[in-house]
Amino acid sequence: MVDKQAHSTGRGPGPGRPRQERVTGAVLDAVVALVAERGMSAVTMDAVAMRAGVSKPAMYRRWPTKQALIIAAAEARIGLLEVPDLGDFRAELRVVLAARVEAYRRPGVDRLLAGVIGASAEVGAERGAYGEYAARVMGETRRILERGIDRGDVRPDTDIAAAATLVAGSLAFRMVGEQRLPDDALVESVVDLIGRAVCVNP
Amino acid sequence: MVDKQAHSTGRGPGPGRPRQERVTGAVLDAVVALVAERGMSAVTMDAVAMRAGVSKPAMYRRWPTKQALIIAAAEARIGLLEVPDLGDFRAELRVVLAARVEAYRRPGVDRLLAGVIGASAEVGAERGAYGEYAARVMGETRRILERGIDRGDVRPDTDIAAAATLVAGSLAFRMVGEQRLPDDALVESVVDLIGRAVCVNP
Repeated sequence: MVDKQAHSTGRGPGPGRPRQERVTGAVLDAVVALVAERGMSAVTMDAVAMRAGVSKPAMYRRWPTKQALIIAAAEARIGLLEVPDLGDFRAELRVVLAARVEAYRRPGVDRLLAGVIGASAEVGAERGAYGEYAARVMGETRRILERGIDRGDVRPDTDIAAAATLVAGSLAFRMVGEQRLPDDALVESVVDLIGRAVCVNP
Repeated sequence: MVDKQAHSTGRGPGPGRPRQERVTGAVLDAVVALVAERGMSAVTMDAVAMRAGVSKPAMYRRWPTKQALIIAAAEARIGLLEVPDLGDFRAELRVVLAARVEAYRRPGVDRLLAGVIGASAEVGAERGAYGEYAARVMGETRRILERGIDRGDVRPDTDIAAAATLVAGSLAFRMVGEQRLPDDALVESVVDLIGRAVCVNP
């Protein structure tokens, strides 16, 4: 839902679209800035509206809850990828992981990701919405695994869901568990390990 | 630090030890119960002391901050393991993962883990303490990888840090990212995938 919004924004020919896109950007930037500076507890609809210079009704129309807002902010930073067919699973996995590392290293994203996870555990959180966001983020890894199986360089008996969980969990756990920014060396090691785990030619 | 406390509690012959152990258990149980029922924001030194029936000075002596307290609560649920030498890396990895799945499925642990991650991102959090806790949790995976290399069934060129991150991240991400409880099927798939990634005989 949030994802469709993000994709449709600014795409159509309507005269209001560019302004709407600017408002969206200002609001989501304000969420990340507040999380980075003062933690997730500082993110309230009031604080975000004030910081972004947007009216609260305009915010509530697009993001009816704080939960929808912080998922949209996370998705604006860590969202969908599209990886072209490179003819090689490992090369495609490297693209996915390198894009994630680049996103994770942007200011405030470490705290945003940890804060989104923490918010999912609060009372009243609609936990399904967080799971759906995670599923969208993992979509590209599932697609390159399926493409590899069709192409023939990924083993057809691969447990795609488990492999996608391993890939997504690696960088995320390094950052929010071990509290270290993932780097290119981790990307290469994960490509190497997952490649041996799922490729026909280990 | 917290870990040493947990291990020394109740071990010595002093007459106060069994009572101390009960107090520790009551306090850490109270943390988990509060997180499970009302979220991490409900965990205050006051609320925990009241729920556990313990004086605040007694709590502050052992856990000087809320951060130390929630890490201790997490470590009481998801802590160190000791896996005997089973002569086979895959068998040992299965023991590690099965123990984690059992811990993760206990009531309140999903919310506790997500809450601990969220708390690590709050302003004022001493983030190194969270990273050190994660490193302790990952210790057993590192040890079985090293033992496998010495034994000869794990490839000597394995990036142990990256492999341990993959293992720890898999179950954690399934739970706090995908919002699904890890199960035995995931354990088997991760044993299979990591086994192919790191074992001499894939």
